[in-house]
Amino acid sequence: MNRTTVVGVIGAGRIGRVHGNNLLRMPSVRLKAVTDPYVDFASWPPAPVATAKEPETILEDQEIEAVLICSPTPTHADLTERAARAGKHVFCEKPIDLDPERIRRTLAVVADSGVKLQVGFNRRFDPTFARVRRAVTEGEVGEIHLVKITSRDPEAPPVAYVKTSGGIFLDMTIHDFDMVRFLTGSEVEEVYARGAVLIDPAIGEAGDVDTAVTTLKMANGAIAVIENSRQAVYGYDQRVEVFGAAGSAEAANETPNRVTVSTGAGVRSDKPLYFFLERYQASFVAELEAFFASIRDDLQPPVGGADGLMSVLIGLAASRSMAENRPVRVETP
Amino acid sequence: MNRTTVVGVIGAGRIGRVHGNNLLRMPSVRLKAVTDPYVDFASWPPAPVATAKEPETILEDQEIEAVLICSPTPTHADLTERAARAGKHVFCEKPIDLDPERIRRTLAVVADSGVKLQVGFNRRFDPTFARVRRAVTEGEVGEIHLVKITSRDPEAPPVAYVKTSGGIFLDMTIHDFDMVRFLTGSEVEEVYARGAVLIDPAIGEAGDVDTAVTTLKMANGAIAVIENSRQAVYGYDQRVEVFGAAGSAEAANETPNRVTVSTGAGVRSDKPLYFFLERYQASFVAELEAFFASIRDDLQPPVGGADGLMSVLIGLAASRSMAENRPVRVETP
Amino acid sequence: MNRTTVVGVIGAGRIGRVHGNNLLRMPSVRLKAVTDPYVDFASWPPAPVATAKEPETILEDQEIEAVLICSPTPTHADLTERAARAGKHVFCEKPIDLDPERIRRTLAVVADSGVKLQVGFNRRFDPTFARVRRAVTEGEVGEIHLVKITSRDPEAPPVAYVKTSGGIFLDMTIHDFDMVRFLTGSEVEEVYARGAVLIDPAIGEAGDVDTAVTTLKMANGAIAVIENSRQAVYGYDQRVEVFGAAGSAEAANETPNRVTVSTGAGVRSDKPLYFFLERYQASFVAELEAFFASIRDDLQPPVGGADGLMSVLIGLAASRSMAENRPVRVETP
Amino acid sequence: MNRTTVVGVIGAGRIGRVHGNNLLRMPSVRLKAVTDPYVDFASWPPAPVATAKEPETILEDQEIEAVLICSPTPTHADLTERAARAGKHVFCEKPIDLDPERIRRTLAVVADSGVKLQVGFNRRFDPTFARVRRAVTEGEVGEIHLVKITSRDPEAPPVAYVKTSGGIFLDMTIHDFDMVRFLTGSEVEEVYARGAVLIDPAIGEAGDVDTAVTTLKMANGAIAVIENSRQAVYGYDQRVEVFGAAGSAEAANETPNRVTVSTGAGVRSDKPLYFFLERYQASFVAELEAFFASIRDDLQPPVGGADGLMSVLIGLAASRSMAENRPVRVETP
Repeated sequence: MNRTTVVGVIGAGRIGRVHGNNLLRMPSVRLKAVTDPYVDFASWPPAPVATAKEPETILEDQEIEAVLICSPTPTHADLTERAARAGKHVFCEKPIDLDPERIRRTLAVVADSGVKLQVGFNRRFDPTFARVRRAVTEGEVGEIHLVKITSRDPEAPPVAYVKTSGGIFLDMTIHDFDMVRFLTGSEVEEVYARGAVLIDPAIGEAGDVDTAVTTLKMANGAIAVIENSRQAVYGYDQRVEVFGAAGSAEAANETPNRVTVSTGAGVRSDKPLYFFLERYQASFVAELEAFFASIRDDLQPPVGGADGLMSVLIGLAASRSMAENRPVRVETP
Repeated sequence: MNRTTVVGVIGAGRIGRVHGNNLLRMPSVRLKAVTDPYVDFASWPPAPVATAKEPETILEDQEIEAVLICSPTPTHADLTERAARAGKHVFCEKPIDLDPERIRRTLAVVADSGVKLQVGFNRRFDPTFARVRRAVTEGEVGEIHLVKITSRDPEAPPVAYVKTSGGIFLDMTIHDFDMVRFLTGSEVEEVYARGAVLIDPAIGEAGDVDTAVTTLKMANGAIAVIENSRQAVYGYDQRVEVFGAAGSAEAANETPNRVTVSTGAGVRSDKPLYFFLERYQASFVAELEAFFASIRDDLQPPVGGADGLMSVLIGLAASRSMAENRPVRVETP
Repeated sequence: MNRTTVVGVIGAGRIGRVHGNNLLRMPSVRLKAVTDPYVDFASWPPAPVATAKEPETILEDQEIEAVLICSPTPTHADLTERAARAGKHVFCEKPIDLDPERIRRTLAVVADSGVKLQVGFNRRFDPTFARVRRAVTEGEVGEIHLVKITSRDPEAPPVAYVKTSGGIFLDMTIHDFDMVRFLTGSEVEEVYARGAVLIDPAIGEAGDVDTAVTTLKMANGAIAVIENSRQAVYGYDQRVEVFGAAGSAEAANETPNRVTVSTGAGVRSDKPLYFFLERYQASFVAELEAFFASIRDDLQPPVGGADGLMSVLIGLAASRSMAENRPVRVETP
Repeated sequence: MNRTTVVGVIGAGRIGRVHGNNLLRMPSVRLKAVTDPYVDFASWPPAPVATAKEPETILEDQEIEAVLICSPTPTHADLTERAARAGKHVFCEKPIDLDPERIRRTLAVVADSGVKLQVGFNRRFDPTFARVRRAVTEGEVGEIHLVKITSRDPEAPPVAYVKTSGGIFLDMTIHDFDMVRFLTGSEVEEVYARGAVLIDPAIGEAGDVDTAVTTLKMANGAIAVIENSRQAVYGYDQRVEVFGAAGSAEAANETPNRVTVSTGAGVRSDKPLYFFLERYQASFVAELEAFFASIRDDLQPPVGGADGLMSVLIGLAASRSMAENRPVRVETP
C-alpha cells in the first residue's frame, strides 16, 4: 500500500470541490481540511473533513504536506508563497498571477523553499490529447508543420468575470497556449491575434472579445493557430490537430455515448460532453495523481512554474497583438 | 449525507475485486468484509477490510445488510439462499444457476425472505446501451422490427472454463439475451442457433463452439439476431442496433480516445477498449449504485431474479437448437 | 482508341433507362436500338437511337453484337436464349428466371451458342463492397468466420409487384445471397430464414413478409446472416461486414456529402443515398464496362450464368425454410 | 431535348483534358475543336474533334459559341478578350491574371461585348461544400462567427511552377479565398498571413513558402482562417467549417470507399481521394453544366469576373502581409 499523503484544499468554489471530491476517492490521499472564507460548508464536503474560513488552518497544520490552491486568481501567488515557505508542496490552479513579475517572484520563493509546484493545466492529462502528444513523440506525425486548436465554450461567462479575468487570452486561450507547448514541445516566439465581439455586446463593453483567432510562430518553425469562441450552442468544442512531415494526428470531441439515431430527418448523435467538468473529468484525477506521484517519488511535477509563467507571457503578447493589430514577440521568461 | 450501507463481498476473484474496488470509492457504502477460500489477501483489498476464507464471516455478521456474491457459479444459488435467509439483500453475479429448477427454488427463498435480489447484468447500465434503450422508450425508433447484437470477446477463455461454463450460450450469449430483453422490453419466444468451431479445435473437443449466430423470435413480433465470436483480434466488439418503424438506433464501440492518425499508410484509430473490465467500467459502478438505491428507497431492483431465470431459459433453448439444428421454443419461466 | 461495340437494349423501364443512359456516355459503345412494347419513347432516349416495340428489331440486326435484357423477369430466359442463338452476347438483369430448371435450360443454350452471358449483380462492382472483397482476398480479414449483411429498402414495393416477384428472398435478398458468395468466395450449403409482416399487412396478405433474418451455413465453415427490411424510413441501408481470424472489414452507408451540422439539438448528417439508383450509380457503369471488356478481350464475364442460378437456388431454400420453419439445404446447381 | 452548344477548348494540358473529357459526355454540348501549340494530339481527344496549334481555329469559327480557356495563366486575359470580342462566351480557368489592372481591363472588354464570363472556381460546385453553404443560407449555422479552411495538397508542385505561379497565395490559397467568400457571402477586408518553408528548401529559394496560415477579417464581422500545406503525405486534405450563432457545419474529406478494417494493429480506413482530379471530379462537371445553363437561359454565370478579380486582390494582400509581417487591407476591386 502506498503511504498516505495528507492534503488541504484552499478555496471551495467549483474547481475546489471537483478536486476535493477526487481527493476523497483517492486511496493513498487523506483530505484533512478545506478552507474558504465565503462558502457555507453545510452541503459539502460529504465526509468528515475539517473546514474553516481562513487558510491558516491548513498552512499552520504540520501534518498537511500538500496544498491545493483553488481560491480566486489574485490570491494564488501569495498563497503559493506562504504554502511554500511553510514547507508544503503546492498544486496551484492557473494562472499563478496575471503579472509576470509577480509570478517570477513566486517561483523564486518556491525554488528557495525546495517544495514541488504543479500548475493546473489539466488538459495535458486528458487521454485523447495525451494520445496526440504520443503521436508526436513516437514519430507518427514527423517534424511538426502546423498545429490547430479549436476551443469553444458552451456559454459565455458572466461579464463580471470577464472584467477581472484578464480577458479571453488569459482566462480561456491560456489553456490552448499551454496545449500548443505541450503538443509541440516547442516555445512560442511571436503571436498575432484577431478578436471580435459577436456573441455579447456587454463583453465588448467590458473591454474584451468573445471570438478570436490567434496565430503563433513556434521556435521549431511550425505555425500554430488557435480559434476560440465563448459560446458554441452545441456544447464544449475541444479539438486539436498536429500536422507534420509524416502525417497528422487529430482529436475529435468526446461524447456521452456512441449512439447514432437514423430517422426520416437524418442521422443524429448526441452533443459533445457539456463543459470542462464533464469533458475533463479524467484529466482532473490524473493531474492530481501525477502531483502526488511527484511528491512520493521526488520527481519534477509534469507541469511546473515555468509552464505557468510561459502561458501568461503568451497571453499578454496576444492581448497586445489584438489591441495594436500587429504581430507581437513573446517576452523572454 | 446518505446513510451508509454495510456490505460484504463473497468471492475475491476478478469480478469480486472489481466490485470491491468500486465499493471502496462509494461515499455511502462501507465494505466491511471479503471472503474467499482460495485467495491470499496480501495484495488486496487496499484498505482496512476484514478478510476470511469462509462466507460465514459475512453471513453471520449482523451489521452487514447487503452481500455481493462473486464466487463460482455452482455456489451462487446456495449462497443467495443463505444470505436471503440471513435477511441480507443480495447482489448475485449471473447466472444464478445453470438449472432453471434450481433457480426457481432460490427465487422462492428470496421471495419468502423479503430481501432484494439483483442479478449482475451490468451492461444494462452502460451509458451507450442505456441511450439505445432510451431511443426505444422515447419513440425515436418506433415499433421495433429488428434487433442486432454483435458480441465478440478479444480472446477465447481457457478450455477448462468452457467445460464447466455451460457453453457459449450460457456463459457469453447470456448477456446478449438479457440485452435483447432490455432493449426491446419484450420476451423471447423461439430460438434458432447455429454454431461453428473456427478458432480453437480444443473448444470443439470440449463440446462447445466458438462462433455462433442466434435468431430470436420476440413476443412483440420483432426478430433479433445475435452474433458471437470468442476471439476478435482487434479487441472487445460490443455493438447493438435496434431498428423500427420510425428509425434505427445504433451503438458503436467505445475507444480509449478520439484520435485519428493519417499517414501515407491510411487513416488509423486505436482499437476498441480491450475487454469487459475496461469497456464496462462505468456500468459496474452504476449497477451497484442502483442496487444500493433500491435498498435505501425500498424499490424493486432494476434487474431481478426473473431476469436471471429468463436468460438461462433462453440459453438452454439456444443450446438445444444448435444441438438439434432446429428452432426451439423457450420454456415458460 | 478501343473498337466500338454496337448494343441493343430490350426493355425501357427504370433499369433499362439507367443502362441506356450509361451506354450513351461510354466512348467505345454505340447504343443502336431500344425496344419496349409499352413505353412511349417521346421523352427518352435523349439521342438518335432506333426505337421499336418488338425485340426482333434488335435480335435480327446483324450489326448489334450485344444485348442488354431489361424486360420483366418472366421474359428473361426466353430472350436470353433467342439472343444467344442469334449470336449476340447477353447482359441479363437478375433473376434469369424463378425456376431453376428453366435457368438450366437457358444456360445450356448459352453454352451451346458460345456467347458471353453476364447477370446483373451490379453490387459486386460497387467500390465499397469491392474494397471489402479485397480485404478478404488480400488477407486483411484472414480465414472468414462471420459475414453480416444489412439490406433495407427505403420503401416497400407495390403489393402488385410482391405478388409476382417470387417474394422477398427472390426479389430482394437475392442480391444479398450473391453478395455473400462474392465476399466469401464460398458456397451456401444450408439456410434458415425467419420472416415477419411488420410494415404492411397487405404484403402478408399477398403471401410475403417485409422483414426477414436469414442464417447461412457456408461451405468454408463460416456463418453468414442477412437481415432485410422493406422499409427503412431514413433511406437505403446497405452495409456488410466480413469478420475473420485476422480482423474485420466493414462497409458503412454512402451519403450524399460529408457534412456534419452541430446545433443545440445535437450533431446531424444527411441521410444515406436514397435508393439503388443513387447508391449503386457507379456500379451500374462498372458492370457494363466489365461486360464489354469480357467481349473485347474474350474473357469470362465476372458474374456468369452459374451465379444467376445459384442465387435463385438459395432464395428458394430460404422461402421453404421460412414456410416450414426449419433449416433447408440448398439444392445442387 | 436541349439545343446543342458548340464549344472549343484552348489548351490541352491536364485541366484542358479534364474539361474536354467531360464535354464529350455532355448530351447537349458538342466539342468541335481543341487547340494547343505544344501538345501532340495522337492520344487525345478520344473522339472526332478538330485539333490545331493556334487558337484562331476556335476564335474564328463562327459556329463555336463558347470557349474554355485552359492555357497557361499569362495567356488568360488576352484570350478572354479575344474570345469576347469574337462574341463567344468564355469559361476561363483561374486566375484571369496576376495583375488586377490587367483583370479590370479584361472585365471591361467582356462587359462591352456582352458575352458571359465564368471563372473556374470549381469547388463551389462540390456537393459537400455546397451542402455547407446551404447550412449557412438555410440558417442552420446562424450569423457566422468563424470560418476554418484546411487545404493541403498531396505533394508540392515543381519549383519551376512555383517560380511563375505568383506564389502559394495566388496559385493555391486563391481557391480558399474564393471558398471563404462563397461560404460566407461576405467580403474580405483585411488579411494577415504567416508562412514557412518546412517541406522543400528549394521552394524557399524560389521566394515562396510551402506552409501558411492566413487570417481574414470579413466585412460581416466574422474571422476566417485558412491553413495550407504543399504536402500532406496522406493525400489531398480539403476540409471546411463554418461556425456561427446557431451551430456549426463541417465538411470532412471524401474517401474512395466507406470501409473500415479492424485488425490487431488498430482500426484503419483508406486515405482521402488523392488529388483534385479525383476529389473534385463531380464539381468539374457541375461548373460546366452551370456555365452552359447560364448561356442557354441567359443567366448570370454563378462565378463571374468580379469573383476572379476579388480572389487575386486577396491573394496579393496575403503575399504582402507575409512579406511585411503585418496585417494588410484588401484593395478595393
